[in-house]
Amino acid sequence: MRVDGRTEYELRPVKIETHFLTNPEGSVLISVGQTKVICTASIEERVPPFMRGSGKGWVTAEYAMIPRATGQRNMRESTKGKVTGRTMEIQRLIGRALRAVVDLDVIGERTVWIDCDVIQADGGTRTAAITGAFIAMTLALHSLAIKKDFQAYPITDFLAATSVGIVKEQGVVVDLNYEEDSTAEVDMNVVMTGSGQFVEVQGTGEEATFSMNELQQLLEAAQSGIQELFKIQSDVLGVAADLINERKTEK
Amino acid sequence: MRVDGRTEYELRPVKIETHFLTNPEGSVLISVGQTKVICTASIEERVPPFMRGSGKGWVTAEYAMIPRATGQRNMRESTKGKVTGRTMEIQRLIGRALRAVVDLDVIGERTVWIDCDVIQADGGTRTAAITGAFIAMTLALHSLAIKKDFQAYPITDFLAATSVGIVKEQGVVVDLNYEEDSTAEVDMNVVMTGSGQFVEVQGTGEEATFSMNELQQLLEAAQSGIQELFKIQSDVLGVAADLINERKTEK
Amino acid sequence: MRVDGRTEYELRPVKIETHFLTNPEGSVLISVGQTKVICTASIEERVPPFMRGSGKGWVTAEYAMIPRATGQRNMRESTKGKVTGRTMEIQRLIGRALRAVVDLDVIGERTVWIDCDVIQADGGTRTAAITGAFIAMTLALHSLAIKKDFQAYPITDFLAATSVGIVKEQGVVVDLNYEEDSTAEVDMNVVMTGSGQFVEVQGTGEEATFSMNELQQLLEAAQSGIQELFKIQSDVLGVAADLINERKTEK
Amino acid sequence: MRVDGRTEYELRPVKIETHFLTNPEGSVLISVGQTKVICTASIEERVPPFMRGSGKGWVTAEYAMIPRATGQRNMRESTKGKVTGRTMEIQRLIGRALRAVVDLDVIGERTVWIDCDVIQADGGTRTAAITGAFIAMTLALHSLAIKKDFQAYPITDFLAATSVGIVKEQGVVVDLNYEEDSTAEVDMNVVMTGSGQFVEVQGTGEEATFSMNELQQLLEAAQSGIQELFKIQSDVLGVAADLINERKTEK
Amino acid sequence: MRVDGRTEYELRPVKIETHFLTNPEGSVLISVGQTKVICTASIEERVPPFMRGSGKGWVTAEYAMIPRATGQRNMRESTKGKVTGRTMEIQRLIGRALRAVVDLDVIGERTVWIDCDVIQADGGTRTAAITGAFIAMTLALHSLAIKKDFQAYPITDFLAATSVGIVKEQGVVVDLNYEEDSTAEVDMNVVMTGSGQFVEVQGTGEEATFSMNELQQLLEAAQSGIQELFKIQSDVLGVAADLINERKTEK
Amino acid sequence: MRVDGRTEYELRPVKIETHFLTNPEGSVLISVGQTKVICTASIEERVPPFMRGSGKGWVTAEYAMIPRATGQRNMRESTKGKVTGRTMEIQRLIGRALRAVVDLDVIGERTVWIDCDVIQADGGTRTAAITGAFIAMTLALHSLAIKKDFQAYPITDFLAATSVGIVKEQGVVVDLNYEEDSTAEVDMNVVMTGSGQFVEVQGTGEEATFSMNELQQLLEAAQSGIQELFKIQSDVLGVAADLINERKTEK
Repeated sequence: MRVDGRTEYELRPVKIETHFLTNPEGSVLISVGQTKVICTASIEERVPPFMRGSGKGWVTAEYAMIPRATGQRNMRESTKGKVTGRTMEIQRLIGRALRAVVDLDVIGERTVWIDCDVIQADGGTRTAAITGAFIAMTLALHSLAIKKDFQAYPITDFLAATSVGIVKEQGVVVDLNYEEDSTAEVDMNVVMTGSGQFVEVQGTGEEATFSMNELQQLLEAAQSGIQELFKIQSDVLGVAADLINERKTEK
Repeated sequence: MRVDGRTEYELRPVKIETHFLTNPEGSVLISVGQTKVICTASIEERVPPFMRGSGKGWVTAEYAMIPRATGQRNMRESTKGKVTGRTMEIQRLIGRALRAVVDLDVIGERTVWIDCDVIQADGGTRTAAITGAFIAMTLALHSLAIKKDFQAYPITDFLAATSVGIVKEQGVVVDLNYEEDSTAEVDMNVVMTGSGQFVEVQGTGEEATFSMNELQQLLEAAQSGIQELFKIQSDVLGVAADLINERKTEK
Repeated sequence: MRVDGRTEYELRPVKIETHFLTNPEGSVLISVGQTKVICTASIEERVPPFMRGSGKGWVTAEYAMIPRATGQRNMRESTKGKVTGRTMEIQRLIGRALRAVVDLDVIGERTVWIDCDVIQADGGTRTAAITGAFIAMTLALHSLAIKKDFQAYPITDFLAATSVGIVKEQGVVVDLNYEEDSTAEVDMNVVMTGSGQFVEVQGTGEEATFSMNELQQLLEAAQSGIQELFKIQSDVLGVAADLINERKTEK
Repeated sequence: MRVDGRTEYELRPVKIETHFLTNPEGSVLISVGQTKVICTASIEERVPPFMRGSGKGWVTAEYAMIPRATGQRNMRESTKGKVTGRTMEIQRLIGRALRAVVDLDVIGERTVWIDCDVIQADGGTRTAAITGAFIAMTLALHSLAIKKDFQAYPITDFLAATSVGIVKEQGVVVDLNYEEDSTAEVDMNVVMTGSGQFVEVQGTGEEATFSMNELQQLLEAAQSGIQELFKIQSDVLGVAADLINERKTEK
Repeated sequence: MRVDGRTEYELRPVKIETHFLTNPEGSVLISVGQTKVICTASIEERVPPFMRGSGKGWVTAEYAMIPRATGQRNMRESTKGKVTGRTMEIQRLIGRALRAVVDLDVIGERTVWIDCDVIQADGGTRTAAITGAFIAMTLALHSLAIKKDFQAYPITDFLAATSVGIVKEQGVVVDLNYEEDSTAEVDMNVVMTGSGQFVEVQGTGEEATFSMNELQQLLEAAQSGIQELFKIQSDVLGVAADLINERKTEK
Repeated sequence: MRVDGRTEYELRPVKIETHFLTNPEGSVLISVGQTKVICTASIEERVPPFMRGSGKGWVTAEYAMIPRATGQRNMRESTKGKVTGRTMEIQRLIGRALRAVVDLDVIGERTVWIDCDVIQADGGTRTAAITGAFIAMTLALHSLAIKKDFQAYPITDFLAATSVGIVKEQGVVVDLNYEEDSTAEVDMNVVMTGSGQFVEVQGTGEEATFSMNELQQLLEAAQSGIQELFKIQSDVLGVAADLINERKTEK
């Protein structure tokens, strides 16, 4: 049994509250256990300089924590005057992952800005951010798709992420909370599509290593957890979910 | 009648959700109409260098908006690499205001860090932040007071703030929303204590001016609005409210 | 009697040396007692991006102190790599105040850059800066008005500022020097126009509060002090003063 | 056949020039095809604040490119005033990977600073940096081990890294050069120990995805390439290689 | 004849107003023609980290221009968030030059902070800064010497600087104003001691070069100009000048 | 005899390896004794804003050291977030010096970016950088000259630099290594053209001074050292050397 009573492959309770804020084109508050992230999607009618004239769109992401999302208060990055390496790594990951399921040709020269603001952190903030940001982005692009009469539905597949790890005594576990994450020997973040393909696999054994066999188990555990997330996303998205499924089968 | 149907001196609906987050010593989500601010209070067991050895505590505040709190997405200050003048002005104001009702001798060499993160902005974010931060700070110091057996209750009075302004056609109005704020000729933020004393009065006539008579009306309107806020704060604080009232009468 | 022998409502000696520097379109050295500020006004033939195409001009201000303006040497903000919150607050105040008496439509798409560099600080640097910057700006716009044949005189009224405060033993006093400022319970900066209207009122009771009655007295004291400043400004400006008065009565 | 005539699993020629510089405790110039990286290891007799008093050492890494390592000149990060997200991601990866094969208890409160400066970039700079930095670090710690009479040899295993990817027409290939990297659908960096354990697996399908089966093939290809690198490292290290092998078998 | 009617070796009128400000331990306003620099010297009772424990003092300098010292307004370095290369070069030069005539052993572990703030720039600001800063520093150290009963007078010689250059038609000229400086083919700054020794010689032929013979002439011209400056410094310093001369002859 | 056995006017062994890197238009690795600098020249098909429309080209330089070029590891300037004063001074010097021998009219609106990256530092890095950068720049502009059919050869003369100094016991010496540089009383960097003209003379007597006679000797010593460098440059450049000599005699 894990510290919070879950079985090895069990996710924490996931709650996705859509339209959490009134201003963004898409927004959700996602809770994965005690981890809570506000994800918003904003549509800008232009692309960054390196994409201009390409006829294609772009998706970019930013990630932050409020100072007291954690047990100890963290200094704001605006006060420090710079963004930490950890934040940069995470926001690059989120943007890359989301671009895997958006048809950038369909949306044309527009940027989708994803903002993931963690208001409470209990492990797995980056994977919760991806899972939630996918919903916020879909809401925003769905509205746009209705207004703009796109050639195809702009979202080509579902996308969700979870963490897996190897924890002493339990072995391979899914969706680590902060306590588990702090003591895990191996930590892996996995992003997958609704079609069961991998988008990102990032496994790290800080001061430890892992065998091919363990890697195998971690990936299977991640797959099983992410399947659960797709069901939750599907329920939340309603008609948008149907359109994604339709687009997915056309591939 | 105002754009949202309120009378001149009527506040927007105010909702204060306490213990909104689990990590901070004190936290609230305050809503004033569509304006929503997460206020947290964190206790640090030391003071900034300029206070060391004084035996006295300190209260300091930070303020930020998530990028899509507003109609248009704003660039993050961490991405810009610096905090704007507007943010600095606001966080200095919040800190100064809160210090007026804390007995810094009583709390000893500790810092109360106040963080006000605006997740939705519809005018009056700085005054909502003050009104909410007072609750978060009181919750944090109340818990501390219970554990530490202070010589006196550390909160000496209530504290709340509102905006008032002069808007064409309506004249003097209380608690301006974004639309009113954008068109107001005079804009004033007023912070008061439960005893009816002023802590801060900041009135500005950008590209306009105001007479002594108008100033008088603005101050009276602010007083009436802030009285309402004290009632709401009192309900929310329960026993802590009683202890503040006790301490207040001792003065 | 105050520490420097003044009566409660008495200003320190004010001296305004015009055309102090040869390069700026307008410049003064203003001394208010031991406080000395170089104020320059520079005309730029364009406006910031957010004003382009509006047909209107802009006034913006910057404020700094040389390191040894004060008793202790302060680190330069350029060395720190950032502007402090205090500086930002002051320069926003100066810009806002000056814009209240400039007809931005008349000057067209031009920016007036105001620079206030404090070379000696003995309290009241921001109010001295406003009073002096008004003269520098008028000198610059007066020259421009002569050359450009504007539709109306671009300065619509006089503008000056002073500080008032409540000091133990003396009570309400006008134009606080550094020593008084350090011990004042309430500190208020007031900016007014020649017509007796308020432009800015910023009153703060750090670790203290003030009543409606005290606020009243502070405002009256400020009014009396600022009247004195208008006389000095008027003497210094000569013909420009007449043109301002003419424009003022047209309103 | 690949663009440069290699077979799918063939590495580019690898050359490791040890003692390339005279000042660092350890240094190499590693060439992997046209990619060239100067790796240095410096010993500092203290650890960062978060490790003080732990009795353990630390390994940290920095990574940079000279401006003209690439086909187009890149602006220096010192001129930009900040380190990019890509650089931060890479230097965090290098540090983490190296720490997996250092016995931090043995080296005591010392920091090994690894600097990887790319002077020519043709794909795979981060994996070349890890492979080379391992040698530089071993040289530095070997010298220290001789002088300090450590309880055990401080390097516990070999460490090397390569990239693998899926390129149209070729399928899975090892050690991608810049041209292959630019067109690869999937890109994966793998870090392994001499014992055949994984330390880091980072696979990304930017605007593409990959199946479990493809992931399998990629990992096997990486293993085969890294085996080659261990032989080269072993030849270069001589006696130090023997000591690592001894320590490895003790585990 | 030169643009302003001077002969080739003639300095512009030099005026040194001592005790220009009340707060600094030493201060002057130096005017060299239209160039005006406020120079202050502040004594700090400690040295920078790299000098601690040496028993010796330090002299360091900072240099800045107010935005409208020049014909066109320059952006403040604090607003830019960084100090330009030109400023750094100048402040390093000033500090180095002054240290040549201070007995750092005599003053003990103290720092003399020199601040040179240019309020009007018409060429030669760095040499005017050195000539003026020498006076400010001497005033500050003279007062200290009186109080502290030093083992020897802390200033060991006079120090002054001028610019020389080669201007088309005039040839070698001394003390170039802005107009001459802009068109000079060769530009040289020379710092000398009262004993006729060189401290700094910085000659530059931007887009031009100069022969050994021309270099000779430039140095002689500089010597003649600097002799004039020593006379002015001597008159201004009075008794301090005598003590410097005494100390100088002891060498 | 000097510390490394050289005679007073003897240079350290100089080695210039051309085409050291494959990407830059021109590149060398220059070694002057143990000092080693990678110099690259990159051609950009546009000029900085202040040169646009002038029809003329520009040459600009950047300089850096890898962290462990020196005995002690230096923090990277990218990590510090700013470029030091020393670096700025050096890169301004390199750019200025190179511009003296390039016909900016001939190359048209193009920028030559010079990058000097010190990989090993043993004194004289800035003069080695200039001597090496001249070769890198010539290689780049020579290739361009061949392709573009310029009106004249763009390099108008040779350019090289060395350091000279006054060291106790030896007196005047040429090409100081780190140990000599650290103890020199006077330190001078001299840049000259193949025609024997001076481009830059920067002599500094930190905590010491020098007489006219010593200055004379220093300049003569520099001349003799730089003559040696021209021979080495000539050998390395081959046909480009002939074209420079041709262009030089046309002047």
